[in-house]
Amino acid sequence: MTLTLILGGARSGKSRRAEALARETGLEGIYLATAEPMDADMAARIAKHREDRAAHGWTTVEEPLALAAALAGEARPGRMVLVECLTTWLTNLMVHGRDLEAATAEFLAWCAAPTGPAILVSNEVGFGIVPEHKMARDFRDHAGRLHQRVAEHAARVELVVAGIPMTVKG
Amino acid sequence: MTLTLILGGARSGKSRRAEALARETGLEGIYLATAEPMDADMAARIAKHREDRAAHGWTTVEEPLALAAALAGEARPGRMVLVECLTTWLTNLMVHGRDLEAATAEFLAWCAAPTGPAILVSNEVGFGIVPEHKMARDFRDHAGRLHQRVAEHAARVELVVAGIPMTVKG
Amino acid sequence: MTLTLILGGARSGKSRRAEALARETGLEGIYLATAEPMDADMAARIAKHREDRAAHGWTTVEEPLALAAALAGEARPGRMVLVECLTTWLTNLMVHGRDLEAATAEFLAWCAAPTGPAILVSNEVGFGIVPEHKMARDFRDHAGRLHQRVAEHAARVELVVAGIPMTVKG
Repeated sequence: MTLTLILGGARSGKSRRAEALARETGLEGIYLATAEPMDADMAARIAKHREDRAAHGWTTVEEPLALAAALAGEARPGRMVLVECLTTWLTNLMVHGRDLEAATAEFLAWCAAPTGPAILVSNEVGFGIVPEHKMARDFRDHAGRLHQRVAEHAARVELVVAGIPMTVKG
Repeated sequence: MTLTLILGGARSGKSRRAEALARETGLEGIYLATAEPMDADMAARIAKHREDRAAHGWTTVEEPLALAAALAGEARPGRMVLVECLTTWLTNLMVHGRDLEAATAEFLAWCAAPTGPAILVSNEVGFGIVPEHKMARDFRDHAGRLHQRVAEHAARVELVVAGIPMTVKG
Repeated sequence: MTLTLILGGARSGKSRRAEALARETGLEGIYLATAEPMDADMAARIAKHREDRAAHGWTTVEEPLALAAALAGEARPGRMVLVECLTTWLTNLMVHGRDLEAATAEFLAWCAAPTGPAILVSNEVGFGIVPEHKMARDFRDHAGRLHQRVAEHAARVELVVAGIPMTVKG
C-alpha cells in the first residue's frame, strides 16, 4: 500500500509523470481530482479532461474538500488512486474557511495507514521570495509542512523538473 | 549535435556553469544573447559583457526574437552556441506581442534537429506561489512547458543550485 | 573545520535537517540565531524556541548583523555552530541600511578560513518569477550570489525538499 509523492513547479510535467507512474503499475486507475470549477469555462475544461482520461481507462472522482474520506472510500489493494493535487485541496480548504489542522490531520492519518496504493501530486511553492499577502504566506507554510509530513509516509518522493523526475526519496 | 539545458534560479550561477561547460568542449564559442537593452545603462552593461567575452574568445550575436533563425544561422558542427537565455527570449516575445505558439514551435523544430551543438540557459521560475498578475502566470506557464519540451530533446539537463549543477537528465 | 550549507524553501524542514546533522556530530551545539523580534509576539516565540533548544543542550547566541564577528567569537574546534539563517541576516542588513558588500565580504572571509565547524542554513528564494519590487529583486540577487560563494567554501551543500536532503555537493 505504498504512497508516492510527486512534487513539481508550475507546468513542470508532474501530472504527466504521475500518470505514467500509475500506468506502469497496470492497476485500475482512479483519478481523484480536487479542482473546483470556478466558472463555466473551467467546468468545460474539467469535463473535457475527465472524458480524455475515461478514454484511457481512468475513472474520475471529484472531491474538493473531504480528501481523507474520498481516499478511504476509493483506495484499496489492486487499485491505484492518483490525487491531483494537494495544493489545490489546501487552497479549497482555505477558500471555504475550513479547519486546516483538522482536515490535514485526517488526511495524514490516512497516509499513515493507507487503504490502497496512491500517488499524490502537489506543487512545490516554497522556493520564491516571501509573498506580500498573508494568505499566500500562510498557504505556502501549510503546503511546506504538509509535504514534509506526507513525505515521511511516502516510500518514494520525486521532484519533477522540466518533465524529468529527480529522486528525493526512495 | 547534442543539446544541453541548464536551468537555475536567479543568481544561481547557471551562466557561469554554461560558460564552463562550453569552454570544456574546446570548440569555437558563439554567445547568442537574447537580452534587449531597456535603457542606456543596460546597453552599456551589455556592451561591457560583450567585450569581456570577446577577450575570452567568444563571438557575441544578439537576437531578442528570431531565435530559431539565429540558431539555424550560427549553429554548426565544430562550434558551440550558448543561448543566454530562453526566459528572456520568452519575455521579449510577450512584450512585443509575438505569436508564442509559432515562435516556440519553430524553436522546438530546431531543437529536434539541431544544426550544431548548443547549450541553452533558462531560468526555472515555477517553484513559487501562483503570481497575482495574469501576464506573470502566463509567462511561467509558457516557460514550464518550454522547458519540458526542450528537455525531451536535450542529452543533458542540469539544475544549478548555489553555483553547483545537479544532474536532472544525462 | 568543515562548513555545511543547508538550503531549502519555506517550511521545507531545512532547520530540522540542520539540527539533526549537528546532533549527529556529538559536538557541543551553539545556535547562532539571526532573527530579530519585530514585536512582543515574535519576542515571545523566540524566547520559547531558545528554551526548547536549551532543554536539548543547545546554547543560543543572538546576532542579527555582525555575523562574521559572532562566528569568529563562537566557532572553534570541538563545537558545532548552527547559523539560522543567512537570508534573515541579509534581510536585517538591508533593513538596517548596512553595507552589504562589506558585511558579506567579512562573512565570506570567515568562511574561507573558518575557526570551527559550522552548519549554515539559508532559504533558497530564486526559483520564482521576477519580484515586482526592487528591494525583493535585490534581496534575491544578494541571496543567490551569497549562496554561490558560500557553496565554494562548503564541504557539503544540501537542498532540502519536503524534509528530505538532496545532495548538491559533497
